[in-house]
Formats: sequence, structure tokens, C-alpha cells
Amino acid sequence: MGILIRNALVVTQNDRREVLKGFDVLIEGNRIAKVARGMREKAEHVIDASGKAVMPGLANTHCHLAMTLLRGYADDMHLQEWLEKKIWPREAKLKASDVRAGSMLGCLEMIRGGTTSFADMYFLMDETAAAVEKSGLRANLSDGMIDLENADKRKKELAAGEKFVREWNGKAKGRIMASFGPHAIYTCSRELLEKTKELARKHDVKVQLHLSETRKEVADCMNKHGKRPVDYLESFGFLSERLLASHCVWLRREECVLLGKHGVSASHNPASNMKLAGGGAMPIPELEQANVNVCLGTDGAASNNSLSMFEAMKLCALLHKNARWDATLAPAQQVLDFATRNGARALGFNGGAVEEGKLADLILMDLRAPNLVPLHNIVSNLVYAASAGNVTDVIVDGKILMQERKVVVFDEEKAVAAGGKAAFDLVSR
Amino acid sequence: MGILIRNALVVTQNDRREVLKGFDVLIEGNRIAKVARGMREKAEHVIDASGKAVMPGLANTHCHLAMTLLRGYADDMHLQEWLEKKIWPREAKLKASDVRAGSMLGCLEMIRGGTTSFADMYFLMDETAAAVEKSGLRANLSDGMIDLENADKRKKELAAGEKFVREWNGKAKGRIMASFGPHAIYTCSRELLEKTKELARKHDVKVQLHLSETRKEVADCMNKHGKRPVDYLESFGFLSERLLASHCVWLRREECVLLGKHGVSASHNPASNMKLAGGGAMPIPELEQANVNVCLGTDGAASNNSLSMFEAMKLCALLHKNARWDATLAPAQQVLDFATRNGARALGFNGGAVEEGKLADLILMDLRAPNLVPLHNIVSNLVYAASAGNVTDVIVDGKILMQERKVVVFDEEKAVAAGGKAAFDLVSR
Repeated sequence: MGILIRNALVVTQNDRREVLKGFDVLIEGNRIAKVARGMREKAEHVIDASGKAVMPGLANTHCHLAMTLLRGYADDMHLQEWLEKKIWPREAKLKASDVRAGSMLGCLEMIRGGTTSFADMYFLMDETAAAVEKSGLRANLSDGMIDLENADKRKKELAAGEKFVREWNGKAKGRIMASFGPHAIYTCSRELLEKTKELARKHDVKVQLHLSETRKEVADCMNKHGKRPVDYLESFGFLSERLLASHCVWLRREECVLLGKHGVSASHNPASNMKLAGGGAMPIPELEQANVNVCLGTDGAASNNSLSMFEAMKLCALLHKNARWDATLAPAQQVLDFATRNGARALGFNGGAVEEGKLADLILMDLRAPNLVPLHNIVSNLVYAASAGNVTDVIVDGKILMQERKVVVFDEEKAVAAGGKAAFDLVSR
Repeated sequence: MGILIRNALVVTQNDRREVLKGFDVLIEGNRIAKVARGMREKAEHVIDASGKAVMPGLANTHCHLAMTLLRGYADDMHLQEWLEKKIWPREAKLKASDVRAGSMLGCLEMIRGGTTSFADMYFLMDETAAAVEKSGLRANLSDGMIDLENADKRKKELAAGEKFVREWNGKAKGRIMASFGPHAIYTCSRELLEKTKELARKHDVKVQLHLSETRKEVADCMNKHGKRPVDYLESFGFLSERLLASHCVWLRREECVLLGKHGVSASHNPASNMKLAGGGAMPIPELEQANVNVCLGTDGAASNNSLSMFEAMKLCALLHKNARWDATLAPAQQVLDFATRNGARALGFNGGAVEEGKLADLILMDLRAPNLVPLHNIVSNLVYAASAGNVTDVIVDGKILMQERKVVVFDEEKAVAAGGKAAFDLVSR
């Protein structure tokens, strides 16, 4: 039983960052059982990986999957105008069936691009969870909560958030983790955040939050609370290893230190930050120095407009070199760590590396694709030269989701057609 | 005879930027003969483009194609160290056969990524020209010239440059244009540049030059000539419509005005500039205001490390929004213009649009690829969501080079194997 991948170039992403040439990988159940040369074990599925690399699947640590329906609906606009005139009016008309269709479309794009796990925060999250269950992907999902200082709304949002966690955490044989999703400090009251903290501890789950994405958020926080956002969150004990904070662009060095001290994970979203033109760039050197777990995300397709983590890796490497005028920043190995090991840790599962005992979330890359030749340095090629189209096979939780570019767990054409139709209906409604 | 493309979404990139739904495109010889609905003409090849877009092939206006051999050989290093310790020592060992193999590999990557024409400057350019001839692509090629103020070297370089122009300009049934390639103002004497100007006029060809790529170049020019680079070039009449200047990052507003006044084309290379961390960003708003013909390039694969023009488009759109904290800058339509219409003009051929009379350099895009669904806005999708893997068919000069992802004019596997082997030999030599 299981899967045996033969004769691969294995980019382990283990603690020693070994790259193993001509190795086999054995998968039993949903785990990696062995990584070795010339194995004699038998398996139900044998994959010949000659001319291919095996690497951990990529972890997209910040997304709003159903927003795939709004890809290309509005671009090149100032943030506030984009939100108020374009995005929010459409989101107000979202139906459950739209979220399902948009989520399936997004899952398909992720699979084809080598993303095996992701974090999501949105409305009608039951539908996204159902799509994840069907797609075979792994995800940490949160029902977005916003109370705008309204006590009634707070009660409802917390109840819905907790209901989602009760119903979905651990589902799909453990592929679905649930978390709490307070949207941001400017949409959630301190009371909501404090209650969230308690509930997350009670259920032993993560918390997803947008943090310090724009200068406006920081200025408003200073005005309202007399503190910068990270200091404000620390003041009532909100920072912890449970927290997956997205964006984290406008941080002072002291805030980076606090995030590191409390074991927070910081999800960097270079495409979205650049496209929405919030300015600046996540302070990666300072976050790294503070031992913050930096990981990568795409954000929703409305503000990217792609869910490709290969693209996110390259953008990350380029953005920081450009921002600090220093070509040595965000080197390829560090960026690959963000997208694999660190991402798995941020989402809360034992993966992100090809080694014995880890969850079997792996992808195969076509090393004979012209854009990946020559092979002077596989890590460099993965970060700077690879793209979604180079992914040939995807395995999640020990199950093959895509084989030689063909998705085998659900009907691709149907998902594409349904996504396109839902999107058209949504903007015509 | 000819090719009839049926029932496509045609992104014309004509003067009115029309997007035509359900149109046919007729190609006769190497030209687009007609764009209309429901044509009754017959053709040798009929392509059903239902579910596909037809658009002008992308023009990569700055490359060093043979450097594809050094993709991933050295990254994340300071520019001078990277050049002196890694790139130059390897280039010193380049053989003609390496340049041929690297160029074929690069041509293959370009075709697969929807690039139909490109500009190149490098050594041993006869080999790149032979690769272009074989590949079916269109290119404007220049033999790189460097004299370092040495009169003997100058004479040899100019002779070689002119020989290349005589031998190759107009070859491959006109697909190959030749130009002069003085490397940069810091590697070429004023005498060489002045002679180049005369020769370019004599042969009626273009001139390719690196310009204002780094602050060092500007500072050195000020020290040596008492002028900034563009002012220096203008002082002896070097600026003209013949000039394709690459990078153009460190320009003052007055220099942008001069470039516009003289009709210079400015090739923007966002990935390379960001990766080498020269700092800043090409001043696109000022160049546009000065009516400079801005176009896009990848630069060589050693400093990118991809030849994807889809990636270059997205990087361009994101970089400038981030640089000026303004989400309205470098909107999708403008960036698509850079990569199509403006690129064709910079290279000097009558293409870059799908309309009657233009050269038939076209690509087809798979609109059913999940990452291109939904289709709210095709231009947005092409710039922000598409990638090389979405290109299904490539036609150059009226000839099909790739059909349903299969290159039909030369052996892909051989080109990949030869490129990989040449690269390995080069770094082992």
C-alpha cells in the first residue's frame, strides 16, 4: 500500500536543508515513511520521478479563497475607492453557492500551482470548508468576525465563529483545521479580541488577523488607543503562538521584537501589498532578527490577482532587495523556507519538509521544462525561475490530487465552468 | 493557403484597444489579412480558438539570450561581486557552441512563454542569430561592443559589429534585424559611440545600449564628463529614434524630456533591476509624460532568472505602484502596451497589434485555465493573472511555432538536453 516515488531530486527542506539526488520517497497512509536511495519496498502507486524534483507542497498562509470570483473585477484603483465602490457592494450580494463555486475554482488553481495547504478567512466559511473537503487540500479556515464595537453583532459573530470551529476543526480526516478569524483591530472591538483569545485557548486553535497592513491602520490605532497596533495587542495578552498575523508591513523594530517574543507567525503578502500600494515593505530583516516565523501568502485573487505561491516567492525575493537596495536580502533558501517549513508551522501542522514522519504533502516539479534548465541550483530555480505550470504532480495527506498535470479528485472542467458562471452572476446581480 | 483562427476573443491592441468577442483572424503569408466575424475564407490551417484569446505576441526588448546557461549559477550577491567573481570568469570561457546551445534553450523558453520577438546583445552573436533563424522567432540582434578607451580594440569591435550587421540584417526572411550594440557609456569611448551613430545611420539600423542602470554609472559619468548620462549622449547627437536604451532607471525629469524629444525607446527590466538591487525604479510617469516609447524586457536569465514576459508585465505593474505608493500607476492596459505595441516599435517591426496589415506574430491563450477564470477583464487577466503556462499556440511571421503546447519547428527535448549539457560544461571548464 501507499505511494513510492522513485529516483527523484528531493528538496527536503529538512533542518539541514539537504538536497538528495536520485532518492526515493515512500508514503504510507498520510505520512512520509522513508526517504532513501534504492528502496525495495512495494507500494500501490509507483511514481517514476526521473527528471523531476520532489519538494514540500507550498503553504499559502493568507487567502480569501471565494474572492477568486472577483479576480480582475477592479484593478488599478486607490484602496478605499476599490473597497467601497467595487468590492464591498459585490460582497454584500454573495450567496453561499457563490462561495462554494469560487472556493472550488480557487482550490483548483492552488493544486495546479503546487499549493497543498492554505489559510483562509471569509464569510460563509462552511462553503469553503466543503470545497476544501472535496478538493483534497489541507487548510486552516476561519469564519471572519467583525463587530464594529456593536455588542449584539459581537455576540453573533463570536457564536458563529465558535460554531464553525466546533463543526469543522479536525474534519476531512484532519485536513481541515479551524481557527478564529477576527478581521482586524479597526473592525473588531477589544472585547471581541479578548473573547477570541479565550475561545482559541479553549478550543486549542489558531487565530487569524490582519495586522498593520496600512499606515491608516497604525495612525487610527494611535489615535484611538494611544499605542501602535502590536503594542495594543500585547497590552491585553493577545500575542501568542496561536496568532497568524497577515501583512505586518508597518512595524517598528520594537514591535518585531514583541512578535518574536510571543511566537507570532507573520504572513507576508508581497503581491497584494504592492498592488494595493500601501507603500513600504514588510521589515523582513528585523522580523528575522527577532525570530518571528515569517511565512508567505497570496491574499485573495481580487488584490493579487493570482494564487500562485511560486510567484509569491519570487516577488518576496525581489521586493526586499529593491526596498533596501541590497541584493543579499531575502535569498532563495530563506524564501523557500517561508513558503514551506514556516508556512506549515504557521498553519499548525507537522509538514513543510520531505522527511520521515512528516505529513505527506508533496509536489513534483518538471526539471526538464526549459525554464528550469540548467540546474546549477535547484533552490534558486524554484524561487526565481519556476512557475505554476512546472508542477506535474500533487500529493496531499498521502493522496494523489494531480497526476501529470491532470487533477484526479474532482472534475476540473466543471469547477472552471461553475466558477466562471458564479462570478458572472455575482457581478450581474 | 494561410491560417484561419476561428471564434477567438481578440485582444487587438490596435489604436482603439478593441477587444473583439467571437472574431476570426485570417493570416496570409506573414501578414494579418483580416480580422472579422464569421469569415468564409478557406485556409490551409484552421485553428479553433473557442475558449481562447488571441493577442499580439510579446516583445522582450532586452535580453542576453546565451546567459540562459548561467540561470541560477549565482544569486543574492552584490552586483560587483556577482559580476567579478561569478559571471565574468564564466563568460571568459564561453565557446561558440555554448552560445548556440544557450540561445536555443532561451528561444524555446520564449516560445513557450508567448514571446515572439526580442532584442539581444551579447558575444558570438552569429550563434544566437543561427538559433533565431532555426527557432522561427523574430529578433533584433546586436554584437556587443566594448573598447574601454582602447583604439585598437575599438577598431576591431566596430568592424565586428558592422560585419554582423552586414551579414545578418534582414536574414531569415526578414525575421532577423541586426543592430549595433555599444554596451554602455562606461565601457565604450565617446569615439566608439560617435562612430556607431554614423554606422547605424549608414546601415539604417537600430542601436542597443545599457543606460543609467545604476547610480554608479551616473556618478562616474558626472565625474568624467561633467554631465549626466543622457545629457552626455545628447551632447554629441547620439539620441535618436534608432536608440533602444535599456534600464533607464536613474533619470532626472530633464533627461526623460530629452529621451522623448529624440524618440528614444526605453526598455524597462523590472525583475533584473529588483534582483540586482540597483535601487529605485524607472520613472515611468515622467517618461510617459515626455512621450518616451517605454517597453519591457527580462534582461538575461542570470539576473532574472526567467525569460517570461508575463512575469515582467506583472512585476512592472506592481513595482511602480509600490515605488510611488499609488495603486493607479502602471495600470494593466498601459503595461500590456509596453509589452506589445511599444515593444514592436522599439525593435523596429510593423507588429504588436492584431489588425490587418501587421506582421502575423500572434499567440493564443487558454481562457479555461483556472487562473484565468473568471473573465471580468481580459486585459487585467493577461497582466495580473496569466503566466507562461497559459500560452497554447504561437505564430510568428505567419508560421506556427507552437501548437497546443507542443513546439513544432524544432526538437524541444534536444534543445533542453543540449542547453543543460552546455551549461554544465561551462561551469566545469
